[in-house]
Amino acid sequence: MNSELINKGLKIFENCDNALIASVDSDGFPNLKAMLKPRVNNGLKEFYFTTNTSSMRVKQYLQNPKASVYFMNERGFTAIMLTGTMEVLQDSASKELIWREGDTVYYSKGVTDPDYTVLRFTSVKGRIYENFKSYSFNI
Amino acid sequence: MNSELINKGLKIFENCDNALIASVDSDGFPNLKAMLKPRVNNGLKEFYFTTNTSSMRVKQYLQNPKASVYFMNERGFTAIMLTGTMEVLQDSASKELIWREGDTVYYSKGVTDPDYTVLRFTSVKGRIYENFKSYSFNI
Repeated sequence: MNSELINKGLKIFENCDNALIASVDSDGFPNLKAMLKPRVNNGLKEFYFTTNTSSMRVKQYLQNPKASVYFMNERGFTAIMLTGTMEVLQDSASKELIWREGDTVYYSKGVTDPDYTVLRFTSVKGRIYENFKSYSFNI
Repeated sequence: MNSELINKGLKIFENCDNALIASVDSDGFPNLKAMLKPRVNNGLKEFYFTTNTSSMRVKQYLQNPKASVYFMNERGFTAIMLTGTMEVLQDSASKELIWREGDTVYYSKGVTDPDYTVLRFTSVKGRIYENFKSYSFNI
């Protein structure tokens, strides 16, 4: 059952255009933000995002790593929510892993730009939404 | 300054196709979900959503009303996040306010369907994302 849901979830991820990530701010409010689709993933278990070191999300995840990630198709009628933790990575191996040519548009100083940060999300649970039904599973 | 950002935020809302709502679950993890675009709103201050009474989101908001709502255009490059509280409404005036012909597709028993619930979001703060910049304001 789980492997079927994981395959379905991977398909939703592959077909999505972008991602949304959620955090909890210091006042306990959920926050969310659209992100570029992660370029590197390990199944549904890990996803790597890039962001600005100075961003609000980085501050929030350093304080509270509880996170979720959401990928959707067809305007949200088919979607997957993954719940887990988000790590803020500054090591050069992680940065080089996801750096792509042309990223200087976002980070003018290149892969060592101090404003370039990697976020690694690790899933614990998943929930798939499809045809007005939902299915939960562990990862 | 605020009124300019509020007007910009309203334009993002008007042009969006759907909405995302976020909550905090009982373990303190942020959760999020795509929703139909709210049909009734009062500027950027209040938004009315419909949902299933039995949904996970209803349980979470009854326990913890802290919420955020996200509207986006152009795959998320332009977006607004609103932070505030979500109320779960079961009174018939609220239900009738947002009921539309054809909603029996979702709620077969009509406006009095016990599985039909109204969520009212009230904003406190806003944050607009545009061209890789962001602007915060109170509402």
